[in-house]
Amino acid sequence: MQFSIRPVGHELDAALQHKIDNKTKPLGSLGQLERIALKVGRIQNTLSPRFTQPHMLIFAGDHGAAKAGISAYPQDVSWQMVENYLRGGAGANVFSRLNGMAMVVIDAGVAHDFGERDGLIDAKIAPRGTRNYLVEPAMTREQCATALARGAGFAREAIARGCNVMGLGEKGIGNTGSASLITHLLTETPLAECVGRGTGLDDAGLAHKRALMQQAIDRAQLPPDADVMAILTEFGGFEIVMMVGAYLAAAEAGITLLGDGVIATSALLAAARIEPRVLDYVVFCHKSAEAGHAVQLRALDADPLLDLGMRLGEGTGAMVAYPILCAALAFMNEMASFESAGVSKSVR
Amino acid sequence: MQFSIRPVGHELDAALQHKIDNKTKPLGSLGQLERIALKVGRIQNTLSPRFTQPHMLIFAGDHGAAKAGISAYPQDVSWQMVENYLRGGAGANVFSRLNGMAMVVIDAGVAHDFGERDGLIDAKIAPRGTRNYLVEPAMTREQCATALARGAGFAREAIARGCNVMGLGEKGIGNTGSASLITHLLTETPLAECVGRGTGLDDAGLAHKRALMQQAIDRAQLPPDADVMAILTEFGGFEIVMMVGAYLAAAEAGITLLGDGVIATSALLAAARIEPRVLDYVVFCHKSAEAGHAVQLRALDADPLLDLGMRLGEGTGAMVAYPILCAALAFMNEMASFESAGVSKSVR
Repeated sequence: MQFSIRPVGHELDAALQHKIDNKTKPLGSLGQLERIALKVGRIQNTLSPRFTQPHMLIFAGDHGAAKAGISAYPQDVSWQMVENYLRGGAGANVFSRLNGMAMVVIDAGVAHDFGERDGLIDAKIAPRGTRNYLVEPAMTREQCATALARGAGFAREAIARGCNVMGLGEKGIGNTGSASLITHLLTETPLAECVGRGTGLDDAGLAHKRALMQQAIDRAQLPPDADVMAILTEFGGFEIVMMVGAYLAAAEAGITLLGDGVIATSALLAAARIEPRVLDYVVFCHKSAEAGHAVQLRALDADPLLDLGMRLGEGTGAMVAYPILCAALAFMNEMASFESAGVSKSVR
Repeated sequence: MQFSIRPVGHELDAALQHKIDNKTKPLGSLGQLERIALKVGRIQNTLSPRFTQPHMLIFAGDHGAAKAGISAYPQDVSWQMVENYLRGGAGANVFSRLNGMAMVVIDAGVAHDFGERDGLIDAKIAPRGTRNYLVEPAMTREQCATALARGAGFAREAIARGCNVMGLGEKGIGNTGSASLITHLLTETPLAECVGRGTGLDDAGLAHKRALMQQAIDRAQLPPDADVMAILTEFGGFEIVMMVGAYLAAAEAGITLLGDGVIATSALLAAARIEPRVLDYVVFCHKSAEAGHAVQLRALDADPLLDLGMRLGEGTGAMVAYPILCAALAFMNEMASFESAGVSKSVR
């Protein structure tokens, strides 16, 4: 699948900066809000950027490796949490409601038969989730390509409904394991730095998880020049691969993307390997407390808005930060200029 | 004026923590949002804390010392910005509208005759602002006491309208100078660390401002045991002293306070010197880029939510952070528990 992502234009940079600098405030005094206004202005190619139909796409999938003890929670929590989404009780529901964001829940391959359900999109790549990457590739190349295309399709559907700002979230017991393997291979950072406690492993659990992750790397014997699809095929979750496709399709459509935590950013690393211009469209929202996220942010040279010690997943970092992006656009559109307000400018 | 502030109770701590820990999320995974939920639960003495009628009180006042060259902007900007508030065009207007916060603008002593104006409360302590603290005390002890009482009164009026969460903001060309003097004296930190660029002084301007601040300290010859009212009388702005009264009255009424930037925090330092329990009611919202704020936060052992490089004043730091507090209360009230959602708990 090919994605053709336009680089964001810089034609308006001077005009955007002029507008920002002439707002009734000391020069530069809105800090990162000014940076966001400039970035979204570039993305939307306008001096008056606005968000419409904000969406959170939540992809859920299960992992064959989860049963090997890489998570503090049993695998059943994946489907139980999907049920929680459908009843509106999860963190993602609470924060998306609060922000007026549409939340779309996609079953990428949860090991549970939900039947037909309102509010749940059945897009299972395999009915029991991925295979156990400790002993064999997590998926086939065909499954990987299908997941990528489906993820892209869900992003395009939201954009067709008028969405121009999107965050991606996920659910999948064990998926910090996949994220750490992908991060290790794509950033060439020592594996131990990429593996964290996930939902809450203790020291012994973390040591066990690290050993299992090394076992997975040793098993796969990927060549040094393995391409990103090969890495995703070996270690991906279906939800992660769908996120890769969604990021790429959304950037291709030229909308603003909300960067999130360690799983979402592993997908973004993969997307950026396929098409680096995807990063032109991302506002990094928060720094997760999960270990591998610092590695990812460093690799992407990203300086996120929030550092609140969060590590919940489900896109909650993006959602909690979203009002700050709205504040950035509001000042750009609603604040008076020195001229319009008749306020004197700096004397120095 | 006496303020009787109850210490927040800790009777509900265990029940609050139990409620937080049983939400459908990994333990501790909402980071600082959990800390806020606990704090506001304590303040409101309930497991289901809610905000009602959020208010921003903006106090404006002029400074006799402003004309000595301690600001990058001319003194007229104070009244021009008040006009901007009245027309709805300032940063404070934009962010309070966005958040559904009531904004109250109070003239504590701006050197301008506004006449009777809708949306502006005339509470001038002196018609031309404070006197020049480089040559004499900024105000009389009587003026200081009056400002404190008026500030307290404005907080009580908002609370009488149903407000249970309040931020304080300010406007006053030159008031970072006052804030730095107060911070120096109350924290016993070297003056140079407490003086910053304010609205945007260059290096020469900063050096000049530091020299003037030292001149003010040398002029006043305050005894080492000077009380906080003596310090405010020497160096306060009327808007700063009103904020001190407002913080104390709001804490006395037991509502949640939104900590802000360098001017507001100088008032909070003074309030805490009068009655340390005021701090039980404060959520520190942001770290300002203005130099003295780091000194203040260290003295108060505060770890604010945001660090976005902002230094606009007007309570904008509190306003940009307010949605994060709302997210904390929303998760507390709306998120399902493991029991209610039928989700399995950690196996470790």
